Amino acid sequence: MAGAFGLKGCQKIRGPQLRNLLEAKDFILLDCDGVIWHGETAVTGAAKAVSSLIRHGKHVVFVTNNCTRPRESYVHKFCRLGFTDVMLEQIFSSSYCSALYLRDVVKVRGQVYVMGCDGLRTELEGAGVPCVEEADEAGATIYDCALAADVKAVLVGHDDKLTFLKLAKASCYLRDPDCLFLATDNDPWHPLSGGRILPGSGSLTAALEVSSGRKATVIGKPSRFMFECISSQFSGAEPAKCLMIGDRLETDMLFGSNCGLDTMLTLTGVSQLEDAHEYRDSELSANRGLVPDYVVDSIADFLPAFEEVDEQSD
Amino acid sequence: MAGAFGLKGCQKIRGPQLRNLLEAKDFILLDCDGVIWHGETAVTGAAKAVSSLIRHGKHVVFVTNNCTRPRESYVHKFCRLGFTDVMLEQIFSSSYCSALYLRDVVKVRGQVYVMGCDGLRTELEGAGVPCVEEADEAGATIYDCALAADVKAVLVGHDDKLTFLKLAKASCYLRDPDCLFLATDNDPWHPLSGGRILPGSGSLTAALEVSSGRKATVIGKPSRFMFECISSQFSGAEPAKCLMIGDRLETDMLFGSNCGLDTMLTLTGVSQLEDAHEYRDSELSANRGLVPDYVVDSIADFLPAFEEVDEQSD
Repeated sequence: MAGAFGLKGCQKIRGPQLRNLLEAKDFILLDCDGVIWHGETAVTGAAKAVSSLIRHGKHVVFVTNNCTRPRESYVHKFCRLGFTDVMLEQIFSSSYCSALYLRDVVKVRGQVYVMGCDGLRTELEGAGVPCVEEADEAGATIYDCALAADVKAVLVGHDDKLTFLKLAKASCYLRDPDCLFLATDNDPWHPLSGGRILPGSGSLTAALEVSSGRKATVIGKPSRFMFECISSQFSGAEPAKCLMIGDRLETDMLFGSNCGLDTMLTLTGVSQLEDAHEYRDSELSANRGLVPDYVVDSIADFLPAFEEVDEQSD
Repeated sequence: MAGAFGLKGCQKIRGPQLRNLLEAKDFILLDCDGVIWHGETAVTGAAKAVSSLIRHGKHVVFVTNNCTRPRESYVHKFCRLGFTDVMLEQIFSSSYCSALYLRDVVKVRGQVYVMGCDGLRTELEGAGVPCVEEADEAGATIYDCALAADVKAVLVGHDDKLTFLKLAKASCYLRDPDCLFLATDNDPWHPLSGGRILPGSGSLTAALEVSSGRKATVIGKPSRFMFECISSQFSGAEPAKCLMIGDRLETDMLFGSNCGLDTMLTLTGVSQLEDAHEYRDSELSANRGLVPDYVVDSIADFLPAFEEVDEQSD
């Protein structure tokens, strides 16, 4: 149903319409933070909704720009927060996809300099991609520190141990035009409790883009590469059969739209309905991809829709 | 003299032409790094050239985006490198001008959070602008660290002690729309020996712009504010009477052009003649301001020009 004045998108959906939409899709792609949980707290009803989707035969796939943990650690988190039927193969994080990109797409020969968390390094090493060991040089500066000779890629992610020296080293490695420049994702910041925020990978990437005078290749949403990873690992993951659900217009909705998927915004995270309307009503065609096709308050809204199905089939 | 095909700028100048130009100017504005010195090494002949300018009655003013030292420390550096007749009043650094901006222009009430070197903090405190004391909270994170209540400005400069926590704190302070966002300068990087580079203030500013979703007000070159500081402290510093000399097209030449000054590129620093020609020959009118009016190999070229004057007056 198009908007009142012919404006496509932002259709608030529930009940039978929601049920019909879900029935038409085989793959449900879900962002994590702001959709199924906030940090260490599950969104009310989210675990049940995910279980229902799986029980109704849907392939549920998690697509997260969070690059701080290896996938193994995600399985534990899912379980801890009540999502007990999620398996490793369903999890596509920007760190995992970065490892795939380095190993399978560019087939990097040499070491990778990681400006990111240990979890990112673990994911790379698990894929057989060697990373520069961060030397413990007390008091070293960029004037006198050691630089590895065979660095063929710099990968930036979220790095809560960022130092000036790391930024400077990464900038120096990028002087070599043969050294690739990758970013796990471009998320600018993440909300914390009490009105605080956490600078995201996009913030660190911007710093390095300025100091190196280069642009990073972004692996995570909204870039299409994560969908390529999914469709290479699940046969039948055709765009028309997929629904992308997320809480952030600039990453999740744009990702879905870039990949030709139907998109759904949940209002449990960063973006608000007004933000979506603003993009919808703007005259910039570049904003089209940021407008969700559908909107729900929460993925817990899936439960009543499913209950009706269950009642019908009883 | 316009270029061969009517292209203005990049006039290589020496001898009598250079002498005539210098005679027409009362104020000679000089960038420091790449023009009169490289780090701790003076450019050959630069100290003599500066002395000659002063002896010939020119007001010589140093305009530097380097924000790491207070002005007192600059006087020592000038002296140490052979520029023995330079006084405090001739030095306009982006840290000094940031202090003036906070104290006299926006008249900040409250504390300033500084993401920069101790020298920047010293300059602010010298001007009576209070800065947030950086707490020594071992193991603190943005989740649990203390945040000051009365921060009314965040000032970013070069910070070789940058940490993720500092970036996160600055991002949190900037959530308050009444908190000003300033950058000492926007220099992207600085050359070091051995092909290494040092990320500049512009790199850290970019990180904070992304994490805060705001744009910084830049104090240093190419913004006009530093010229306003100079003209408020020297009567007679009319644009037509000033020549801006620097080594970087994107900062020094654009600064001169933004302020309506004649500009001169020295080839002892970052920018090369080919870079200037590229801007001159480009069709983008936005690039006009990056094209120097004049070019010299080094400010040591001033010496023969002056010698001729001295010979004439002997």
